[in-house]
Amino acid sequence: MQTYRHILLALDFGPGHEQVLERATALAQTEGARLSLIHVVEFLHVDLANELVLPQDVALESQIMATARRKLARIATEIGALEDIGQWVELGSTKQEIIRIAEQEQVDLIVIGSHGRHGLGRLLGATANAVLHGAPCDVLAVRIRPEA
Amino acid sequence: MQTYRHILLALDFGPGHEQVLERATALAQTEGARLSLIHVVEFLHVDLANELVLPQDVALESQIMATARRKLARIATEIGALEDIGQWVELGSTKQEIIRIAEQEQVDLIVIGSHGRHGLGRLLGATANAVLHGAPCDVLAVRIRPEA
Repeated sequence: MQTYRHILLALDFGPGHEQVLERATALAQTEGARLSLIHVVEFLHVDLANELVLPQDVALESQIMATARRKLARIATEIGALEDIGQWVELGSTKQEIIRIAEQEQVDLIVIGSHGRHGLGRLLGATANAVLHGAPCDVLAVRIRPEA
Repeated sequence: MQTYRHILLALDFGPGHEQVLERATALAQTEGARLSLIHVVEFLHVDLANELVLPQDVALESQIMATARRKLARIATEIGALEDIGQWVELGSTKQEIIRIAEQEQVDLIVIGSHGRHGLGRLLGATANAVLHGAPCDVLAVRIRPEA
């Protein structure tokens, strides 16, 4: 019996994200599921912590997104045994973009690391209820262990 | 490649818990993992919402726990194709007891429904950070859909 058909892995490229990648890849293989990758670049021009609105630096955002696209493409190549890997680099709110793509692509499992700047610490901290009520599917929080 | 070896399914017997059971059972089968069941009976004698300390009703607690043990045993029999199903009925804090048994039994995945009185709504509401920092392993939140 196939449990999941389409897994969306949210990657933040932070410390230990390889552990989350490894877990999601293994799960996609055992479940026979399609795997897609998403990385969200948060808007840079609003610094809520300091209540300071910075001038929007479009060139910097474009550069960061281009770098993220290259990273995702390299990861997709490395796990190339799995065919048809969707790759999404989005600009906006991490929570909203993950949920939007999950709905759009009819994902049935979101996989996310349990710490990291854009990881579960962020997603399930202040916005825990919003994500869980918003997510159209199951959510797997992968515990990131300190690197040996 | 085996992703998970021991899955702990937290059940609350609330609406839709069959969906969580079905998902966890299917996952245990495809992953070749052992499955254990836990149900936590919260302490009855402290009513925090009303700041009222009720007299402890030991007989009632015992009765509720006995009923829970029978329910878990019936569920274990129903999914009997999986051998060696651990069954835990604990009294205390849902969060603490799930984490305690997960550590004690060297569980590598906790599965829990995404709503219900003792489900994810409770676990990942006010105590989200505590659970996520406390959990020794991955956590899968299964989205419960309204019954058709």
